[in-house]
Amino acid sequence: MKKIIHLITAFAFLGMLISCGNNSQNIKKKQGALGSNAAEKVYVAPGEYDEYYAFISGGFSGQLSVYGLPSGRLFKVIPVFSQDAEKAWGYNEETKPMLNTSHGFVPWDDAHHPDISQTNGVVDGRWVFINGNNTPRIAKIDLTTFETTEIIEIPNSAGNHSSSFVTENTEYVVAGTRFSVPIPQRDMPIKEYKGNFKGSLSFISVDPEDGGMDLKFQIMMPGFDYDLAHPGRGASHGWFFFSTYNTEEASTLMEVNASQNDKDFIAAVNWKKAEEYIKAGKGKMMPAKYAHNVYNEKTHTATSTMKDEVLMLDASELPGLVYLLPTPKSPHGCDVDPSGEYIVGNGKLSANLTIHSFTKMLAAIEAKKFDGEAYGIPILKFEDVLAGVVDQAGLGPLHTEFDGKGNAYTTFFISSEVVKWKLGTWEVVDRQPCYYSVGHLMIPGGNSREPFGDYVLAMNKITKDRYLPTGPEVTQSAQLYDISGDKMELLLDFPTIGEPHYAAGIRADIVMKNSKKIYKLEENEHPFAVKTEADTKVVRDGNVVHVYMTMIRSHFAPDNIEGIKVGDKVYFHVTNLEQDYDVPHGISMIGANTSELLIMPGQTETFLWEPKQVGVWPFYCTDFCSALHQEMQGYVRVSPASSTLPLSWSLGED
Amino acid sequence: MKKIIHLITAFAFLGMLISCGNNSQNIKKKQGALGSNAAEKVYVAPGEYDEYYAFISGGFSGQLSVYGLPSGRLFKVIPVFSQDAEKAWGYNEETKPMLNTSHGFVPWDDAHHPDISQTNGVVDGRWVFINGNNTPRIAKIDLTTFETTEIIEIPNSAGNHSSSFVTENTEYVVAGTRFSVPIPQRDMPIKEYKGNFKGSLSFISVDPEDGGMDLKFQIMMPGFDYDLAHPGRGASHGWFFFSTYNTEEASTLMEVNASQNDKDFIAAVNWKKAEEYIKAGKGKMMPAKYAHNVYNEKTHTATSTMKDEVLMLDASELPGLVYLLPTPKSPHGCDVDPSGEYIVGNGKLSANLTIHSFTKMLAAIEAKKFDGEAYGIPILKFEDVLAGVVDQAGLGPLHTEFDGKGNAYTTFFISSEVVKWKLGTWEVVDRQPCYYSVGHLMIPGGNSREPFGDYVLAMNKITKDRYLPTGPEVTQSAQLYDISGDKMELLLDFPTIGEPHYAAGIRADIVMKNSKKIYKLEENEHPFAVKTEADTKVVRDGNVVHVYMTMIRSHFAPDNIEGIKVGDKVYFHVTNLEQDYDVPHGISMIGANTSELLIMPGQTETFLWEPKQVGVWPFYCTDFCSALHQEMQGYVRVSPASSTLPLSWSLGED
Repeated sequence: MKKIIHLITAFAFLGMLISCGNNSQNIKKKQGALGSNAAEKVYVAPGEYDEYYAFISGGFSGQLSVYGLPSGRLFKVIPVFSQDAEKAWGYNEETKPMLNTSHGFVPWDDAHHPDISQTNGVVDGRWVFINGNNTPRIAKIDLTTFETTEIIEIPNSAGNHSSSFVTENTEYVVAGTRFSVPIPQRDMPIKEYKGNFKGSLSFISVDPEDGGMDLKFQIMMPGFDYDLAHPGRGASHGWFFFSTYNTEEASTLMEVNASQNDKDFIAAVNWKKAEEYIKAGKGKMMPAKYAHNVYNEKTHTATSTMKDEVLMLDASELPGLVYLLPTPKSPHGCDVDPSGEYIVGNGKLSANLTIHSFTKMLAAIEAKKFDGEAYGIPILKFEDVLAGVVDQAGLGPLHTEFDGKGNAYTTFFISSEVVKWKLGTWEVVDRQPCYYSVGHLMIPGGNSREPFGDYVLAMNKITKDRYLPTGPEVTQSAQLYDISGDKMELLLDFPTIGEPHYAAGIRADIVMKNSKKIYKLEENEHPFAVKTEADTKVVRDGNVVHVYMTMIRSHFAPDNIEGIKVGDKVYFHVTNLEQDYDVPHGISMIGANTSELLIMPGQTETFLWEPKQVGVWPFYCTDFCSALHQEMQGYVRVSPASSTLPLSWSLGED
Repeated sequence: MKKIIHLITAFAFLGMLISCGNNSQNIKKKQGALGSNAAEKVYVAPGEYDEYYAFISGGFSGQLSVYGLPSGRLFKVIPVFSQDAEKAWGYNEETKPMLNTSHGFVPWDDAHHPDISQTNGVVDGRWVFINGNNTPRIAKIDLTTFETTEIIEIPNSAGNHSSSFVTENTEYVVAGTRFSVPIPQRDMPIKEYKGNFKGSLSFISVDPEDGGMDLKFQIMMPGFDYDLAHPGRGASHGWFFFSTYNTEEASTLMEVNASQNDKDFIAAVNWKKAEEYIKAGKGKMMPAKYAHNVYNEKTHTATSTMKDEVLMLDASELPGLVYLLPTPKSPHGCDVDPSGEYIVGNGKLSANLTIHSFTKMLAAIEAKKFDGEAYGIPILKFEDVLAGVVDQAGLGPLHTEFDGKGNAYTTFFISSEVVKWKLGTWEVVDRQPCYYSVGHLMIPGGNSREPFGDYVLAMNKITKDRYLPTGPEVTQSAQLYDISGDKMELLLDFPTIGEPHYAAGIRADIVMKNSKKIYKLEENEHPFAVKTEADTKVVRDGNVVHVYMTMIRSHFAPDNIEGIKVGDKVYFHVTNLEQDYDVPHGISMIGANTSELLIMPGQTETFLWEPKQVGVWPFYCTDFCSALHQEMQGYVRVSPASSTLPLSWSLGED
C-alpha cells in the first residue's frame, strides 16, 4: 500500500509542477491602430494576459463579472446579490447573512453600476462597489480576493439606481433613491404622491484602511425619481451630481406622465457643506431599519447587524446644500469630465446633449441668480450654467464617458450608436453603430481624472441576429472599439453573462499584483476549523451534529461516519488543508436541500444536511483535484430516529 | 398626451427596425490549416456566426452552457439543476417543481456529461440530455427553446456519473450509479459493504415524438463503482459499455483501497437482451421513490409526480445480459469508435490505453471462453477481447474521442496533454500539451457514427497563471485545437463558466433553423395568463391575493394597486404581451424574498410577495426594454392587517 501512496503523491506533485513562471511580462501589448487587423488586435494568445480588467455588472443577474480586454473573455462571476449554488454563496452557513435585509433574506437583486475605488482621483484597484437596485443596497468587492466582503442596505430608499459612485479619494460611495416613496414609510393613497412622497440621497463613508462602510448621512429630497450620478473632481471635488426625472411627480403610466416637462434637473449636492451642517448639529437622527452585513476574512464568516437610525439632512431647510440645474429631458446619465468642469446631462428624450459648466454654476450661485425653487431648493437658470450643447448628435442619449484626451463618447439608445465629440467645441467628430440599442458605455478609468483612453466598450440591450440563436431568450452583448486613433474602430462583438448594465475598467497590472493566491491555514480563525486530520471529530448536541472535517488530495477525514439519525441536523464544517494555488476541493451530499461547497485552500465552509431516510449515503469531492479525485468520497450511515448507535468516525480502517 | 404616446411608439418601432436579415449565410467558414494565423481562425467577425454549437456542462455549477466554436464565446447558461435568480429558475412558481426530488427540493446538482439526441447514429439537434451526479437525475433540454423541459430522478443510485449517454436512435438515455449502496437502502454497517452494497444501471426510454422520458428498467449489478459509459453503434448497437473501478469493494480511503487491483472491468450490457427478458416476464417490480418533473410548454408550468416502483433485472441471475471485460486500471472514459467495433478503456492509473474489440468479444462469448465470474456475471479473458494497446502514450489517460477519419484523441490528466493515435495500428501520431490537467475532450459529433472532425476541445482543471488572476478562486478553461491537418494546432485558450466537465458539439445549421423566437400568445394556456390589458385584475381569496398583470413597452397593467395588507400572500402572475423577438420584460418588487421574473414574449410567470411592512412599495421592469424602460414601474399600497380598504387597481388614472 505504501508504494501506491507514493505513486499518488508523485502524481499529485507532478500535476502541480506543470506550472508557472513569472507572467507579469506576458500582458498583451496594444497594437497600433494601423498595425494589424481586428482579429489580431483582440486575440490574446494562449499564455498571454489581457491588458485590462473590465468589471461588468450582471444587471438583472445580481452579480459582477470579471472580463479581460481586449479579448472579451469571462474570468469570473463574482456572486454579490444573488444566491450562487456553484460557489455556495447564500447557501452555506458562512455567507447566508450577506443576503439579509430589513425584509428578511433576499436572494436576488439588480446590480447596475460598478465603480472602482480611487486615490487622488485615480482608480487604485483596491475595491469595486456595486449597487443593488431593487432592495436598496451597496456591496463592496475586495480585489485581493475578488469576493464580496460587505453589503450595506440603504433605508428610506426604493430602487437604488444612482449608485454606487465614489468620490475622488473614496471618501464616500453614494446611493440615491430611484423611486420616491413616503419617508418614513406609511399607509397612504398612491394618488397623494405629489408633495408627500420624498426622495433621499445617501452618503456612505469608506474607511481608507479596511474599506469598512458606514451610512454617514442622508439628504431628504423632493419626490422626483433620481436616475444616475457622478462625483465632482478636481475643482468640483466636494460636489456630487444626480440626474432626475419624473419631476412631474406622477405615479401611474409614467412613460407618458413622467415625460411632460420640457426640462428636469441635475441636482448638484455640496457634500462638504453637508459635513459642515452635520458638525453644526443640523442633522436629525431618524428611525430607520437596515442591515449591515460584513464578511470576516479571518473567520471566513459573515455577520448581519440590524441598524436602527440614520442621520438625515433636509435639503428644503438647509441653504446651499443642493441646487437644481434645469436639464432637458428626463436625463439618464449624469457624467463629469476628467477635469471636473463639465457635467453632461444625457437627456434621453432630447435630441441634444446638454453640458453644464461647474465654474458658471458657482458664479450663478454666488450671484444668487435663481429661477425659482422646488420645495425650497433653488433652481439655477439654464442659460447661466450652460457650457454648451452637442446639437442633434443622435436619438436617445444615455451616457457619456471620456478618453482623457479632450474627447467625449456618448451612447444613443434609439439611433443605436456611439458618438464621439470634442469637449469645449461640442463638435461631433465620429460615430459608430452599435448592434443593437446600446445602454451604457465604458472607457477603463473613464470615471476618474485619468482615463486610459485605448478602448471603449459599448453595452447593448438587444442582440437578436448577432449570434447563433438560443431560443426566445438571447444573450445581451458588448462591443469593443479601438479609440486610440482619430476614428473609432469596431474590433469585437462578445456576448455577456446577465445584463451588461454598466462597467468599470482598470489596467491589469494595478490589480493583479495584489491578488491573493490562498488563504493561509494558520490565519484561519473559523470557529469550526480543524487544521490537522488528527483533530477531526463528530460531536452531538441533542439532534444537532457537528462534523469537523478536512479535505486534502484525495480524501476526506473522516470518510466513514456512523451514528447519525433521521431527524438530525448535521452541520458539515469542512476545511481545505491544501496550501497550493488553484487546488480547491468541493463537497456535496446526496439529497442535501442546499448547494455544494467549493472550498479554497486554507478555507472552512459549512453546509447543513437533514437526512430524511435511513440508509448509507455517499458524499464526494465535486472539484476534479487530482488523478485520484474520482476516489475522493465517503459514506454516512443514517439510522432510525430511535437508534442508540453511538457516533463513530474513521478514515482507512477497513 | 397623445402626441407623446405616438412618439413612444415610434421610438420603440425604430428600435425594432434596426434589425435582421437572413443570416444563415453568415456562418464563419473554416479556414484551411495553413490559410491564416490562429487569431484569424478563431475570430468570428461582428455579425458573423460561429460554425458549431458546443454544449459544455457546468460541472459543479449544475448548469449547461452554450458556446460558439471556434470563437469560444458564451451565448447562454441554461439553468438545469441549480437555482438561477436571473432567470427565476427554481424561484418562480412555475419552475420550482422542476427541482423536486424524493429528498424534497434540491437547489443544486453536479452536471457532468451532456449528450445530443441521435437519429440513425447521427446527432440530430433535437435535445440535449445531462446528468445530475449528486442527487441522481437526468435532465432534458429542448433545443427549440434552449430550456430544460424535463428532469427524472434515478432511484437505487448514488452519484449518477456514467450518464447521460444515448443510444443511436435515442431509444434510451442511460444512467449508472457511481457509488454502490444498499439496494434497497437500509441501516447497516458501512464495513459490511463487500457483497452487500449494490450498483444499478438505468435505461430511460425517450419518446421519439415528444422526447418524454420514462424509466423503463434498471439492472442490479455488483457493488463496484460505475464511472463512465458509451453506447455501441453500427454492429454493436444494442449494447452499452460501462467502465468500473473499486472492484475491490472498499469503503474507506479509496485513493488507496480502490487502487489495488491490477485490472477492473468494462461491463458490456446487452440491452436488447434486457428487452427480451422483460418481455419474458423476468423483471421484478420493486418499490422505489423518485420524482418525475415535466415542464409543460403550453401552460408554461412544471409539475412534479412522485413515482413508486421500478422494473429491476438482476444481472447475477439473467445469463447473457452482462459480460465483464478486464481493463487496466481504474478506467475512467469508456469510449466507442464511430464504427462501433472498438471500445477504448482509459485506465487512469495505467500507462497504456486498452482497446477492446466488439467482434472478438462476441466470438469469446459465443465460445463461452470465460475466466471465472463476479457475482454470477461472466468475466471474459483480457487477451481474447483485446484489439490493441496504445503503449506508453502518456500518464493518466482519461477520455478518448474520434474524428471519423481513423484517428482517436485521448486526454492524459497527469502528463497534461492530448495524444492523437491511429485506430487499428495503435501508433501515436501527434501530441499537444494542455494548460493544465486536462479532463475530458470533445470533438463535435464525437459520440456518433459521423463526427465533424475539424476541432477538438480540451477541458482543463487547472489554469493558475493562464489568465489574469481573480484571487484564490480562478477559472477553469477550455483549449481549442484545429485537427483538420496532420498535426494538431492550438488555436485558443478560453476560460469557462463553472467546471467544463464534458461537452457535446454539433454543426450550427442543424440546430439554429429550429430555434424558437417567441411564445405565441394565443397558445398560452397558463391558468393565470391574461391576454389583454382589459382582462387584468386583482382577486382576493382569504389572505391570498392573485394579481393578473400584463407588461408591454413600457408599462405594467395595472401599475397602481391598493387594498393589499400585511400578512397577505400576493401572487403576481405576469404575462408579457410582446410578440416580437428579443423583447423580454422583467419584474421585481422591493423586499421580495425571491428572485425577479424575466419573462419572454408571450410567456406568463409568477412570483410570490409577502409584504411585511405598511407603506407604498414600488415594482419595476428589470430588463431594459425601450427608451422609456426607466419609466416602466408601479406602486403597491400595503395597509395594516386589520385594514378594510377594498382592493383596487388602475393604470393611468391620476
